[in-house]
Amino acid sequence: MPKLDYLVEELVTGNRILAREGVVDSFGHISVRHPDNPQRYLLSRSRAPDCIEKDDIMEFMLDGTPVDPRGRAPYLERFIHGALYEAQPEVMSVVHHHSESVIPFGVVANQRIKPIFHMGASIGHEVPVWDSHDHFGDTALLVENMEMGRDLAKLMGAGRTALMRGHGATVTGRNIRHAVYISVYLEVNARLQQRAMDMGEVKFLTPGEVDKVASRTGSYGITRAWENWCRRAGRPFQPEQA
Amino acid sequence: MPKLDYLVEELVTGNRILAREGVVDSFGHISVRHPDNPQRYLLSRSRAPDCIEKDDIMEFMLDGTPVDPRGRAPYLERFIHGALYEAQPEVMSVVHHHSESVIPFGVVANQRIKPIFHMGASIGHEVPVWDSHDHFGDTALLVENMEMGRDLAKLMGAGRTALMRGHGATVTGRNIRHAVYISVYLEVNARLQQRAMDMGEVKFLTPGEVDKVASRTGSYGITRAWENWCRRAGRPFQPEQA
Amino acid sequence: MPKLDYLVEELVTGNRILAREGVVDSFGHISVRHPDNPQRYLLSRSRAPDCIEKDDIMEFMLDGTPVDPRGRAPYLERFIHGALYEAQPEVMSVVHHHSESVIPFGVVANQRIKPIFHMGASIGHEVPVWDSHDHFGDTALLVENMEMGRDLAKLMGAGRTALMRGHGATVTGRNIRHAVYISVYLEVNARLQQRAMDMGEVKFLTPGEVDKVASRTGSYGITRAWENWCRRAGRPFQPEQA
Amino acid sequence: MPKLDYLVEELVTGNRILAREGVVDSFGHISVRHPDNPQRYLLSRSRAPDCIEKDDIMEFMLDGTPVDPRGRAPYLERFIHGALYEAQPEVMSVVHHHSESVIPFGVVANQRIKPIFHMGASIGHEVPVWDSHDHFGDTALLVENMEMGRDLAKLMGAGRTALMRGHGATVTGRNIRHAVYISVYLEVNARLQQRAMDMGEVKFLTPGEVDKVASRTGSYGITRAWENWCRRAGRPFQPEQA
Repeated sequence: MPKLDYLVEELVTGNRILAREGVVDSFGHISVRHPDNPQRYLLSRSRAPDCIEKDDIMEFMLDGTPVDPRGRAPYLERFIHGALYEAQPEVMSVVHHHSESVIPFGVVANQRIKPIFHMGASIGHEVPVWDSHDHFGDTALLVENMEMGRDLAKLMGAGRTALMRGHGATVTGRNIRHAVYISVYLEVNARLQQRAMDMGEVKFLTPGEVDKVASRTGSYGITRAWENWCRRAGRPFQPEQA
Repeated sequence: MPKLDYLVEELVTGNRILAREGVVDSFGHISVRHPDNPQRYLLSRSRAPDCIEKDDIMEFMLDGTPVDPRGRAPYLERFIHGALYEAQPEVMSVVHHHSESVIPFGVVANQRIKPIFHMGASIGHEVPVWDSHDHFGDTALLVENMEMGRDLAKLMGAGRTALMRGHGATVTGRNIRHAVYISVYLEVNARLQQRAMDMGEVKFLTPGEVDKVASRTGSYGITRAWENWCRRAGRPFQPEQA
Repeated sequence: MPKLDYLVEELVTGNRILAREGVVDSFGHISVRHPDNPQRYLLSRSRAPDCIEKDDIMEFMLDGTPVDPRGRAPYLERFIHGALYEAQPEVMSVVHHHSESVIPFGVVANQRIKPIFHMGASIGHEVPVWDSHDHFGDTALLVENMEMGRDLAKLMGAGRTALMRGHGATVTGRNIRHAVYISVYLEVNARLQQRAMDMGEVKFLTPGEVDKVASRTGSYGITRAWENWCRRAGRPFQPEQA
Repeated sequence: MPKLDYLVEELVTGNRILAREGVVDSFGHISVRHPDNPQRYLLSRSRAPDCIEKDDIMEFMLDGTPVDPRGRAPYLERFIHGALYEAQPEVMSVVHHHSESVIPFGVVANQRIKPIFHMGASIGHEVPVWDSHDHFGDTALLVENMEMGRDLAKLMGAGRTALMRGHGATVTGRNIRHAVYISVYLEVNARLQQRAMDMGEVKFLTPGEVDKVASRTGSYGITRAWENWCRRAGRPFQPEQA
């Protein structure tokens, strides 16, 4: 299968999985960098993730301009995706979501999400919080232009995750499966971390453990989850293409 | 499709969505103002929201008198709806429910639901609590006459939401989708707010942010959710009529 | 339909509803007093509630002796049922369960479940806790003879609900639907009460409100829930027989 | 049916039940000792539990060497299983999982899971916590060789359960159903225990109660749950073989 067709299928599947696994509800989105042109990315038209079909997938320039819209309305917040592809050549997929357990960590000072179990190590040593109010004052909280997107991308740097105060989170990955995997376990880690914090002082993973687990998190483990998530989401499980 | 037929379909769908999304269980109800006569409203007979069919939809005068009951028993609390349509000409739809996360905020002093993320901005700056005991003493807590309904409507004023102590909540909207949308995110916001409060001092949305988000919450975003909710509830997604 | 056949159908449905609504898992049971002989009751053989069929329903004497076992093994804890029918002639149905939100209230001193919203009023003014250890010392915590059953029944008196420390809860009703209804809302009330207690001082329903709501909780409201629960459990909704 | 065929069926069913009941997600595994050769055990190839079919079941020597791999990739953490079968001749089945409610108890000092209700008694008097860091320093937290497996097995001794700090839990049983049963109620007990601890001082089961319940937990009760879990998981319920 041509790489582009493969990625469109993966992208539809990624959307459905994020919905089925409770990372997104009717809002949130996932994109993938274009396989032939790194200055472009693929992202659905403005639609709830669990409703998305192949024909909904649009192509965008990094600045958010749709290449061939054919009347399809884009997400207002597509600039999150373009700004991250622009800033980090290594990033191949981006997820933006409002996953429930992460929201509280974005609105309480001095409480940061950190890995409390090995499945959470891929989120990084500590999840930073981006507050749109710092540089943009009172807004509708949406990342609706490249200036805001670049501000978020600057805070993230090469990190995989960031929270957005009063809004949600953004996650990057080496490919679609990686970004979905981190998104799912960011939610689980946040949920378990809050429960652990309720009981007392938490022993987080050591920095060395985080690095060792993250360096081991590859296709072997992610594929095991992906097959299961495909089945749960009612989507075909296609062989991974490098 | 004639506006009345359209609204009856929407009302059945709204009931099913509220059930599927966990806002109502076997109790709670949603109404819409009559499209041709603002002195009347449409509301199901006394039945659980997830069981409601088109033939269950009855027509009421604002004082709660059924127009053509044909043996159908009405909800005891229909006065909530009539009193709000009477007091607020702009209100086109009303939801009354016992959504789980909002109940605790109605029974604890000095804790008010306030928007902690952009999806919650439509609930208003702060959700007031109406206590039937203040003016009516010991009752069965039900709003079972116009006097109680008007007391609640007075507290709500032009606001979109109110809690009812030891009972539930009431929400108003510009149309059915808007009232359902606010009801769903009132529940989510309350759930996340309690979790955030457990962790420390909460940074709520600023007043300016609440206003900016609320003014942007229109058909563009709500339709995206509505399509998804229709699919989840097994209901047809019909085009919106203004 | 003969009353006995009607009750057997209702009993199967009651079991399935309790499972579907999360009151029981693989354990727990519901019985009904025999319609023709108040010295007997009907209860399933030892089987998970969601698996129960009509042929599983057995007849017992109040002391727990099966009338016509035909090889069917009874629940070890059937004495809960017999002791309550023996002590309270008005009781027509009994539920015993391990509903999750009530367990914590049974193992923490000085925290009692009390109605915090109108749907919880049927549980009574305060739910007492029976501790088998008080009179029986170290046991397997099961009510496995009439002596223990009578001790529990004595604590309950004419009340509708009791917790059992380290074990679960028992509920009585005027009929099957009533006992199921109270069981469902005992769980919901406990869940919401704990969340409210986490936030501050709780304003419970006043004693007068509890009495007014409870006196109003009749077939009108319960039937509305029952129809919905039948649908969710995939069971026929049969007309109520007095 | 030959014992080996019976056990392979049970093992597939055990995997599906653990997934359906929320003990495992895409990770975690269950094994059974070989019926004819106590120096071997049966365990799936590396696959998510809810996807596992009969052909996925592999045979291993206690040191983790696959007997007839036929290209099937094994779980990295199979050494947990071999080390426990090696150390405890009585153990016939082992479950390793990352059940959500137990994780927090593994990362907070001085909070141990203990039975708070009779269904939890099979977990033992107190669930110990194994910290891989104590003897192995910074690792990827996985039990990926026999040395680590034996260290865990040593901590567990004849106990049925242990938590693994920042990782998950391991459970042993007299047979597959027993190990699954304990795994399910370890999760429930942890969940309820945390909620009880939130409310005040907890009255746990007495040591005598734990012993009495555990000694009574046999095929009678477990089979009742197993039939129900088979139905929920869409698996045939086969008669138990001793």
